Amino acid sequence: MKIVDMRVHSLAIADPPLRSSYGLHQPYALRNVLELVSEDGIVGIAETYGGDEPANALKALRDRVVGADAWRLTGLLMDLVEGVGDGLDRSHTMHTPGENPLDESPRTYSAIETACLDLIGKATGVPVCDLLGTRVRDAVEFSAYPFYKHAGGGGEGSDAREDKYGECLTPESIVRQVRMMKEEYGFHDIKFKGGVLDPEVEIETIKQLKQAFPDCPARIDPNSAWTVETSIKVGVALKDELADGGYLEDPAAGIDGMAAVRKGLLALGIDTPLASNVAVTAFQHMPESIRNDAVQVVLCDHHFWGGMRQVQQLGKLCQTFGIALSMHSNSHLGVSLMAMTHVAAATPNLTYACDTHYPWQSADEIVAGGRVKIEGGKVAIPDKGGLGVELDYDQVARLAELYTKIPYRKRDDQAEMRKYVDPAWTRKLPRW
Amino acid sequence: MKIVDMRVHSLAIADPPLRSSYGLHQPYALRNVLELVSEDGIVGIAETYGGDEPANALKALRDRVVGADAWRLTGLLMDLVEGVGDGLDRSHTMHTPGENPLDESPRTYSAIETACLDLIGKATGVPVCDLLGTRVRDAVEFSAYPFYKHAGGGGEGSDAREDKYGECLTPESIVRQVRMMKEEYGFHDIKFKGGVLDPEVEIETIKQLKQAFPDCPARIDPNSAWTVETSIKVGVALKDELADGGYLEDPAAGIDGMAAVRKGLLALGIDTPLASNVAVTAFQHMPESIRNDAVQVVLCDHHFWGGMRQVQQLGKLCQTFGIALSMHSNSHLGVSLMAMTHVAAATPNLTYACDTHYPWQSADEIVAGGRVKIEGGKVAIPDKGGLGVELDYDQVARLAELYTKIPYRKRDDQAEMRKYVDPAWTRKLPRW
Repeated sequence: MKIVDMRVHSLAIADPPLRSSYGLHQPYALRNVLELVSEDGIVGIAETYGGDEPANALKALRDRVVGADAWRLTGLLMDLVEGVGDGLDRSHTMHTPGENPLDESPRTYSAIETACLDLIGKATGVPVCDLLGTRVRDAVEFSAYPFYKHAGGGGEGSDAREDKYGECLTPESIVRQVRMMKEEYGFHDIKFKGGVLDPEVEIETIKQLKQAFPDCPARIDPNSAWTVETSIKVGVALKDELADGGYLEDPAAGIDGMAAVRKGLLALGIDTPLASNVAVTAFQHMPESIRNDAVQVVLCDHHFWGGMRQVQQLGKLCQTFGIALSMHSNSHLGVSLMAMTHVAAATPNLTYACDTHYPWQSADEIVAGGRVKIEGGKVAIPDKGGLGVELDYDQVARLAELYTKIPYRKRDDQAEMRKYVDPAWTRKLPRW
Repeated sequence: MKIVDMRVHSLAIADPPLRSSYGLHQPYALRNVLELVSEDGIVGIAETYGGDEPANALKALRDRVVGADAWRLTGLLMDLVEGVGDGLDRSHTMHTPGENPLDESPRTYSAIETACLDLIGKATGVPVCDLLGTRVRDAVEFSAYPFYKHAGGGGEGSDAREDKYGECLTPESIVRQVRMMKEEYGFHDIKFKGGVLDPEVEIETIKQLKQAFPDCPARIDPNSAWTVETSIKVGVALKDELADGGYLEDPAAGIDGMAAVRKGLLALGIDTPLASNVAVTAFQHMPESIRNDAVQVVLCDHHFWGGMRQVQQLGKLCQTFGIALSMHSNSHLGVSLMAMTHVAAATPNLTYACDTHYPWQSADEIVAGGRVKIEGGKVAIPDKGGLGVELDYDQVARLAELYTKIPYRKRDDQAEMRKYVDPAWTRKLPRW
């Protein structure tokens, strides 16, 4: 099935002022959407990181993509996945996902692989998870993903939106936020983004969440904001709250930091698993992480681990070493949500409810027919070929035009933090 | 694509009296061929281990297979691959491949996966390696696989065959054997089956092989026949001969034995890689093997590692830990050869020429049109859907009838050794 055209759409979507240790989300999240068109006019789609660089990386491959067979292309481009990022590079600690030079070409590969699989699936009537070959679940569970946030729902100027959550900078408002999310989406597990307020406040936030939702596994992710000592202190304070399906995600920076936290907690008889999508972001990090027992739950993400099949391979690797698997998310629309759902459905070792930012990007959508349904906290695999969704080209055009009008060309949470919160703010690791 | 029928053919094929540390090959190798028939009459095929037990294991799954969708079945049967053989079980050292209880259900799964992929490939016109998704080579290189052997080409009674190699129980006759194989098939690399004669004779055999074919990487595989001390002695004696693309395969038994050999050789400044398909036969062996640097080359085999996708996953795991990958073989026909070729084509980390017994099973074939071509030592991926081969049903019927007439129901090299060479022979590890 020959590919005769590729199109890249750089989009901007309203994104609320969410806080994390990286800083503050800009009023727009950026996404690129890739279309691969077959000679018989079928279109395969993928959604990936936004801004000019990912778009240019895709466009630079045009000569290798156009004219290729969709069934062969994922093999022909394996050089983008294999042999990159040799050696251990810790530079990623300071990068937001999608900005890590270590996985630049695997990110590009992933978008092309996803679009090829969608194209093949649409042509054959086969869901992507069945092309991947080991669908072990028909619906995939996602977690509520509460953030500390300022008021508003993203956008700026005349395009500024409100959201129903308002400002949430206290434990109580986070509990309210989660309750609203649970009501709307039926989420069960809770993944809480920390690294923003004093650890004592964040401890109190988790405690209040567990009081409000005692049966729901809870996780906290401060994105490396803490020292080893603080991490252990939090682990001790939240020993009970993070048990029974919860975990402590990237409390301290780097494989060494994580290993030290693990050792410190185990010495105190606390075996809360440590999860990571910052200390461990690529296959080449796994040997050292395993040797040092640094990470007990890896957060996969097909967007930056080199695609869906690489995530399946990561799953097997983790399973072999007794490591659990969860799924990382970034701000995204419905095409990414469906891709995440398909790869999760076809990855046996994925045993945690996945992360998703999707409820935060609710102001805009490019999927024909509107937002992908999350019901009972789950996204179902549609009984359709490919990812199971098509593009709404009016919305693509609107968001592409929006992209041309805004000044943002890459994610920069620090700049946004300086602009709206503190002109002197610098991302500092560890902060506490 | 609904599967409406499954058929299992138990076959016997003439097999020459090859020697190994397991004993002596019986006059017939046993194979089972699986057919999965779709509602539109397309037939997907696979070849697997022979005899009654593998056939019964497949037949026992009939209710889960018939009525299932070929695209879904590999997901629905994942329980056969996942969660089996937990814990480290070393019992496999004494078992021939295909008899190891540790991978009984992954073996069954593999045959079904292969037949599903062939069925899907034939229905869509897509080669299996492109269904697997990462074809990185269009032809796969195999090695010459010399064995010490007695005279004859297999079969017995009125069905007894001759072969052109005759008796080969000396270094000189092995060199002659390899020369004939190279002439016929164009093989480059040499994988020599040892563990049969005194190690001094086997050392001399490799030395003569390297004198005759100095540019061809050489390996020796005594199937765990040696003590750690003997293994180190051989490693020292063949330091130069096994360098440059060669390896020492399963010299001593078990992960501990292999690790001790490795340590001993490294202490002498010899870094000849150790390969294994005996000490390491399943994912659950990998952590201990890696921790102890026991094996530097894993021999994959989709027939017993749980199928083609599991081999791809094994490849990534090995690559991640800096372990090389080669491919194991057992006595087989053309359907297995094609399956091995497809999975090898779609496994980037497979960097050694693969093993194949195929030249030894040259008296019989079930592939329509006759034997699969090995040219320049390579098997090419056909430009056809699925595995690229169909069954010759006359030959299937002939070999199935033969199966009903012979007394052999499972491979037993020890019994054959007692019958023809030494009534008191027992497989003893280590022997030297």
